[in-house]
Amino acid sequence: MRPSKRAPDVLRAVTLERGVAKHAEGSCLVKFGDTHVLCTASLEDKPPSWLRGSGKGWVTAEYGMLPRSTGDRMRREAATGKQSGRTQEIQRLIGRSLRAVVDLVHLGEKQITIDCDVLQADGGTRTASVTGAWVALHDCVAWMKSRDMVGPKVIRDHVAAVSVGMYRGTPVLDLDYAEDSEAETDANFVMTGSGGIVEIQGTAEGKPFNEAELTAMLTLAKNGIVDLVELQKLAIS
Amino acid sequence: MRPSKRAPDVLRAVTLERGVAKHAEGSCLVKFGDTHVLCTASLEDKPPSWLRGSGKGWVTAEYGMLPRSTGDRMRREAATGKQSGRTQEIQRLIGRSLRAVVDLVHLGEKQITIDCDVLQADGGTRTASVTGAWVALHDCVAWMKSRDMVGPKVIRDHVAAVSVGMYRGTPVLDLDYAEDSEAETDANFVMTGSGGIVEIQGTAEGKPFNEAELTAMLTLAKNGIVDLVELQKLAIS
Amino acid sequence: MRPSKRAPDVLRAVTLERGVAKHAEGSCLVKFGDTHVLCTASLEDKPPSWLRGSGKGWVTAEYGMLPRSTGDRMRREAATGKQSGRTQEIQRLIGRSLRAVVDLVHLGEKQITIDCDVLQADGGTRTASVTGAWVALHDCVAWMKSRDMVGPKVIRDHVAAVSVGMYRGTPVLDLDYAEDSEAETDANFVMTGSGGIVEIQGTAEGKPFNEAELTAMLTLAKNGIVDLVELQKLAIS
Amino acid sequence: MRPSKRAPDVLRAVTLERGVAKHAEGSCLVKFGDTHVLCTASLEDKPPSWLRGSGKGWVTAEYGMLPRSTGDRMRREAATGKQSGRTQEIQRLIGRSLRAVVDLVHLGEKQITIDCDVLQADGGTRTASVTGAWVALHDCVAWMKSRDMVGPKVIRDHVAAVSVGMYRGTPVLDLDYAEDSEAETDANFVMTGSGGIVEIQGTAEGKPFNEAELTAMLTLAKNGIVDLVELQKLAIS
Amino acid sequence: MRPSKRAPDVLRAVTLERGVAKHAEGSCLVKFGDTHVLCTASLEDKPPSWLRGSGKGWVTAEYGMLPRSTGDRMRREAATGKQSGRTQEIQRLIGRSLRAVVDLVHLGEKQITIDCDVLQADGGTRTASVTGAWVALHDCVAWMKSRDMVGPKVIRDHVAAVSVGMYRGTPVLDLDYAEDSEAETDANFVMTGSGGIVEIQGTAEGKPFNEAELTAMLTLAKNGIVDLVELQKLAIS
Amino acid sequence: MRPSKRAPDVLRAVTLERGVAKHAEGSCLVKFGDTHVLCTASLEDKPPSWLRGSGKGWVTAEYGMLPRSTGDRMRREAATGKQSGRTQEIQRLIGRSLRAVVDLVHLGEKQITIDCDVLQADGGTRTASVTGAWVALHDCVAWMKSRDMVGPKVIRDHVAAVSVGMYRGTPVLDLDYAEDSEAETDANFVMTGSGGIVEIQGTAEGKPFNEAELTAMLTLAKNGIVDLVELQKLAIS
Repeated sequence: MRPSKRAPDVLRAVTLERGVAKHAEGSCLVKFGDTHVLCTASLEDKPPSWLRGSGKGWVTAEYGMLPRSTGDRMRREAATGKQSGRTQEIQRLIGRSLRAVVDLVHLGEKQITIDCDVLQADGGTRTASVTGAWVALHDCVAWMKSRDMVGPKVIRDHVAAVSVGMYRGTPVLDLDYAEDSEAETDANFVMTGSGGIVEIQGTAEGKPFNEAELTAMLTLAKNGIVDLVELQKLAIS
Repeated sequence: MRPSKRAPDVLRAVTLERGVAKHAEGSCLVKFGDTHVLCTASLEDKPPSWLRGSGKGWVTAEYGMLPRSTGDRMRREAATGKQSGRTQEIQRLIGRSLRAVVDLVHLGEKQITIDCDVLQADGGTRTASVTGAWVALHDCVAWMKSRDMVGPKVIRDHVAAVSVGMYRGTPVLDLDYAEDSEAETDANFVMTGSGGIVEIQGTAEGKPFNEAELTAMLTLAKNGIVDLVELQKLAIS
Repeated sequence: MRPSKRAPDVLRAVTLERGVAKHAEGSCLVKFGDTHVLCTASLEDKPPSWLRGSGKGWVTAEYGMLPRSTGDRMRREAATGKQSGRTQEIQRLIGRSLRAVVDLVHLGEKQITIDCDVLQADGGTRTASVTGAWVALHDCVAWMKSRDMVGPKVIRDHVAAVSVGMYRGTPVLDLDYAEDSEAETDANFVMTGSGGIVEIQGTAEGKPFNEAELTAMLTLAKNGIVDLVELQKLAIS
Repeated sequence: MRPSKRAPDVLRAVTLERGVAKHAEGSCLVKFGDTHVLCTASLEDKPPSWLRGSGKGWVTAEYGMLPRSTGDRMRREAATGKQSGRTQEIQRLIGRSLRAVVDLVHLGEKQITIDCDVLQADGGTRTASVTGAWVALHDCVAWMKSRDMVGPKVIRDHVAAVSVGMYRGTPVLDLDYAEDSEAETDANFVMTGSGGIVEIQGTAEGKPFNEAELTAMLTLAKNGIVDLVELQKLAIS
Repeated sequence: MRPSKRAPDVLRAVTLERGVAKHAEGSCLVKFGDTHVLCTASLEDKPPSWLRGSGKGWVTAEYGMLPRSTGDRMRREAATGKQSGRTQEIQRLIGRSLRAVVDLVHLGEKQITIDCDVLQADGGTRTASVTGAWVALHDCVAWMKSRDMVGPKVIRDHVAAVSVGMYRGTPVLDLDYAEDSEAETDANFVMTGSGGIVEIQGTAEGKPFNEAELTAMLTLAKNGIVDLVELQKLAIS
Repeated sequence: MRPSKRAPDVLRAVTLERGVAKHAEGSCLVKFGDTHVLCTASLEDKPPSWLRGSGKGWVTAEYGMLPRSTGDRMRREAATGKQSGRTQEIQRLIGRSLRAVVDLVHLGEKQITIDCDVLQADGGTRTASVTGAWVALHDCVAWMKSRDMVGPKVIRDHVAAVSVGMYRGTPVLDLDYAEDSEAETDANFVMTGSGGIVEIQGTAEGKPFNEAELTAMLTLAKNGIVDLVELQKLAIS
């Protein structure tokens, strides 16, 4: 049995609260259980320098954790003077995931930056970030549409993410911190609303996994992401 | 008349919500109107190296702003690789203010770090931070007391802070961003529950101010801090 | 047809040349076609500080590219003052992959650092690095055994890596730079000699992929890794 | 009695020596007793980028201490790779203080940088810096006038600074290091030649201070600054 | 007798292998015995910003050592975040040496960067670097000539470098690491094909040296450089 | 004729003023004409960590230039966040030069740091630094002797430095900035009181130099250093 008492295929309580940041063009406070991430979208009127004149825009993401979002206080990255490898991995993942469902030509020469800041961490911060970031991005694009800054086809699909893992030999969905610490394998799936796979990151923390386990994890993730996309649809409706 | 429509001597709506961070030994989400700061207290079992063996502990603070807490997105300090001069000034101020009411000998060889992270900014983030940090510190010390780690006399008094300014020739209390941007003078006062002044920082942004104006601002600040201390007392009761 | 004229399931010419670094305890110059990576193993007599006293050792990796290993000269990371997110991602991957087949308790309180420096790049530098790093690690452990510093069971299995991708709708193995630039999906698989999966990193650069494509890519990768492990066995025999 | 034997309201011996730097457009070696600061003014033909096209110029300051200006050698900030929070606080203060008496529109699109480098420190380096920086700035503007680069109204007033403190219960003026180390309260006042207050920074190092003490310190500071402005007038005459 | 068994005036086996880097406009793997340096030349179509519009080009160099090129592993400079003083000294020397024989006006508004990366170190990495860098530079300029990008007179002469030292009282040529560690004096000479001296760096590691010793070292160096230039001529023929 | 009107073999006016820094264990303000360098010696009670337990001490140097010591203001190295290659080259040279005349065993497990800060620059800052640094070091050791912290044989000899150059075909001594900018060759010699050569750094800025020119420059330097050592002797007597 999982420490969280959840059945293997059950997500934590997930909420997506929009409009939580007074200044941002879009925002979403996403909660996957005790993991809370504040996602804000910031629009800039020009794309990064390497896209100037291309007619295309850009969507990027930054990620951070508040120092005491975790069980032990982490050093503040602004004070240490650099972002860890983990931070950079995650923010690159979020950016790639969002760009997979954005038409950068229809966006035009603009840049949207999604900041995902973890207020409280209990496992799965990157998957919560992707899922909430999509809502913030959606609202930013809606903000632009209402000002006739873009046409209707900027966002092509939903995108959401969930973690799965092998926990004591069983594939389980959406691991919290206690489960993640003990899992033999930890995998993150990013998928679109129409079921396409955007990103898989699977790592055997303990013993290697096999194809059957991969398939079982993929099935769990697909179902989880169907639920998350449903919640995104509810949130923006 | 102030942009905020408040009378010159009226604070914004101030709330102090405790216990908002699952992992921290003490925490407080402080709101001064639309300025929201998450304050967490983290206890370490040893003091900084320069106090080892002294029998004394230390209280320090770190400060940060989420990139889109502000009207225009600011660059993330973790990405730029250093904390700005303003950030350092503020976190030094918060630390000094708290230490003014803590008995470091009674604390013993431990360190408490208060992280003040601005989720949303609308002027007065440093004064909100000091005011909320005291509550987080109080709860951390209470947590220690309940485990017999310290005696009763660690915190000697309340400490709170408020800004005042000269706005179109009138001294006003607790400036929001719109008022602060236009004020001729901006001053921050940190005071104890018993009315002692811990810190004054006053800067003429436009024309210099005189002694009468300083006195008027001090009077406003004193009254504002009386109210803030009252709110702290309510919050911890 | 692939730009490289290879059949979809054919690796580039792979060579693993041992003993190429006079000073290192183990070394391997690995070539996957025009991708050349120099892997050296360096033994330190103590583990990282967080493992002191644990009885366990550590294996870690660092990765770098010579500035003109690529088509356009890249800025030297030592001169820019930091390692890119990509560099950190790759060196973390190499380290995790190696640790998946090392018994850190049998290694004892030591640290082995594998440096993977790309002399020339033509796609697949991370997979070549993992594959060559294992040889350098093997020789370092052999060096230790010959001095009675460790017992026989430090390395539990082979580990190797290969990239696969969807290129114009077809799953292909071991992409070179020209292929990688155009592939719709790029995936890296790290697997052990006994066929266990250690790591999957799959990213849709263009349109999302589906489960059938994932399975096809996995099959290609499994076969490729069988060949790479065979080459490792030849190299160390 | 003060360690310095001075009466409570007596400044240290203050000298302002102009023209001490062969290359600078203005310079002043200021001494407040054993505190010696070399202030140089450097003119640049364009303002910072954010003022280009505005018709306005800028005055800024940088501050540094020679490593052995102090009793114990400090680490060289150029070697540690960053300026401390204290350094940044002080240089921001100097810049603000000077800008309070400069008409940036009359200066035109230029930038003057005042470097304040402490050759020897014995307390009060920031107040000596402000006082000497004004002289260097004055001479730089005079240099510009003599070349018809600016009109007569660039500098509107004098500005000078002095520290005051509560030392064993008595308010005292212009603390040296020995006095500062023991003072209960340390405050710095920056004022103009016409008596306006530009900046107050007061900190209770020990017990909080009250309004009467603040008033007493302000009175001392006002008188001290009258004397410092008199010395500035003598120096430039 | 020297640890290397060489007569005092004998170079190590020196080889200059061209065309070793697929992407670079010129490249040379230079070996002075066990010291191996990979030199690549990278052409950029514009000079550094301070030469724009001057009609002149620039030649510069960067230097690095692979972490395990040495007996003990060195920390990777990209990971430490800065280049050591020694690295900077050497890359400045290489750049100056090359510019001494290049006509920057005939080069025109372009920049050539020579990267010298030490794959294996056994003393004399800077002299091997200068000697190999010239070959890479030559081939880069030949590449430009074959595309009619420059005329014939860009490179005016050869340049090569060698170390000499006082080893147990005897002047010796081209010290390897074992000899260098014990030498009383270590000197590096950079000279042109026509015998002009471009750079001398001589340092007494133990007791100071005198004019006679300097003269003896210079004579050795001249002869050594004649041989190195001969090898360069062979290499490019 | 030289811009300075000096005969080729004549030094600028050189002064060595001792005891200029209140806090330092030894200090010297050295002037070579308009080049002014403040040298301070700071004693630490323990050597650098890599010498602990060896019985030996260390002498090291740091170098810096005030931002407006030069004709155009240079960026402050503390603000840019790193020391330039030139700064590091010079401070390494000063340290080596001093250590050449110090008996580190007789010094014992201590460290002396000589800070050389250029207050005003007009060419030859490194040679002035070495010459003045020796005086500061001497006074620091005298300070130690007077407290019975060391015996008599710590400093074995004088050390001083001077620049020479080929200016319009003539070898000249002690170049100022105007001469240095135009010289074909610039060389720095560091020599001991007994005439031994500690360091030569010669660079052809324009055309290469030959052996005869090197000899002529060495002769000039020797004579110049005899004079500088004489001035050191006078200064400390």
